[in-house]
Amino acid sequence: MDAKTQKSELTRAAIVGAGLDLASEQGLEAITLQAVADRIGLSKSGVFSRVGSREALQKATIDEFGRRFLAEVFVPAMQAPKGLPRLDAIVQRWIVRTRDVEAHTGCIYSAGAFELDDREGPLREHLHTEIIRWRGALRRAVLQAVEAGHLQADTDADQLVSELNSLILGLLHDARFLRDSRAADRALATWQRLLRSYTA
Amino acid sequence: MDAKTQKSELTRAAIVGAGLDLASEQGLEAITLQAVADRIGLSKSGVFSRVGSREALQKATIDEFGRRFLAEVFVPAMQAPKGLPRLDAIVQRWIVRTRDVEAHTGCIYSAGAFELDDREGPLREHLHTEIIRWRGALRRAVLQAVEAGHLQADTDADQLVSELNSLILGLLHDARFLRDSRAADRALATWQRLLRSYTA
Repeated sequence: MDAKTQKSELTRAAIVGAGLDLASEQGLEAITLQAVADRIGLSKSGVFSRVGSREALQKATIDEFGRRFLAEVFVPAMQAPKGLPRLDAIVQRWIVRTRDVEAHTGCIYSAGAFELDDREGPLREHLHTEIIRWRGALRRAVLQAVEAGHLQADTDADQLVSELNSLILGLLHDARFLRDSRAADRALATWQRLLRSYTA
Repeated sequence: MDAKTQKSELTRAAIVGAGLDLASEQGLEAITLQAVADRIGLSKSGVFSRVGSREALQKATIDEFGRRFLAEVFVPAMQAPKGLPRLDAIVQRWIVRTRDVEAHTGCIYSAGAFELDDREGPLREHLHTEIIRWRGALRRAVLQAVEAGHLQADTDADQLVSELNSLILGLLHDARFLRDSRAADRALATWQRLLRSYTA
């Protein structure tokens, strides 16, 4: 990459990083070209020339969150053997990432779902597609654990995926809103209880 | 109540009702004296003279949501015998109310918690107090079921309350954001699974 391309990549990364910060603090609708420009000392037209419309910037922010989330939660868990060890690694990493959310970007998938649930339009559609894609990956990990005989043969994968998502939403609520220091331990206890009920 | 008092009460109810609609559609921060005035065809000063500041209006909206929620979910369940029948009635009604949330006011407790989780100030404090109060009522219902011998003696009431809240957050997410028609059935299945695990 030549110096000019590198500079351009860095600027784009700074723009999307500012989008992530805004979404994390105030929601996806807080992302505007002007707000991002103000954060990183660019002009509004400078932001536009690099990412395009406000909507394109909002979508790029969701995509960047998805990349980071996969890199932090899913990719490292792929090192664990297929089946329950891998599923367990995914869930444990997901819980830890959610507990330590202050150190990362807030969960834009979850907060975004509550923010956009009764709106319509391309931003909602985009987030919906990304969340469905992530749930698909989680579902495959559940099915692999069933195929390996680690979970009961009659496990309803959609049900378990939905219960795992509920567990994380509850953890976000208790850790971030109630500021309850026991929230992550409770989430781990819920996961152990779920595991027992699907392996018994 | 004389005619003047009645008219005044009706106007106040219309103001708080408009606050509920705004919070339900766009969040608690969307409640302003002007936005409420516009909705019901009053002047901004007319709204102010009845409820006071914007913050007082936001708090009154949270309180009205709490009253309705108790009236719809908790009060009718009090007719069921103390212990598991009553706890079961609460949870079943809570699930139905959440499933049918379009017919009611959106869940301002849950959406508000995600909206305000990283903000500070009296509105957050007020919502926090209300949510803790509701969780206390739910916790008492759990403890009564333990005392009646309907749930295991070593039941961790805080853990179960937190799991019930997670279940509802997952239902809200799946029903309102994913628009998954199986969401309520899944929430009921989760409740049955929880019950088995706490009664086994």
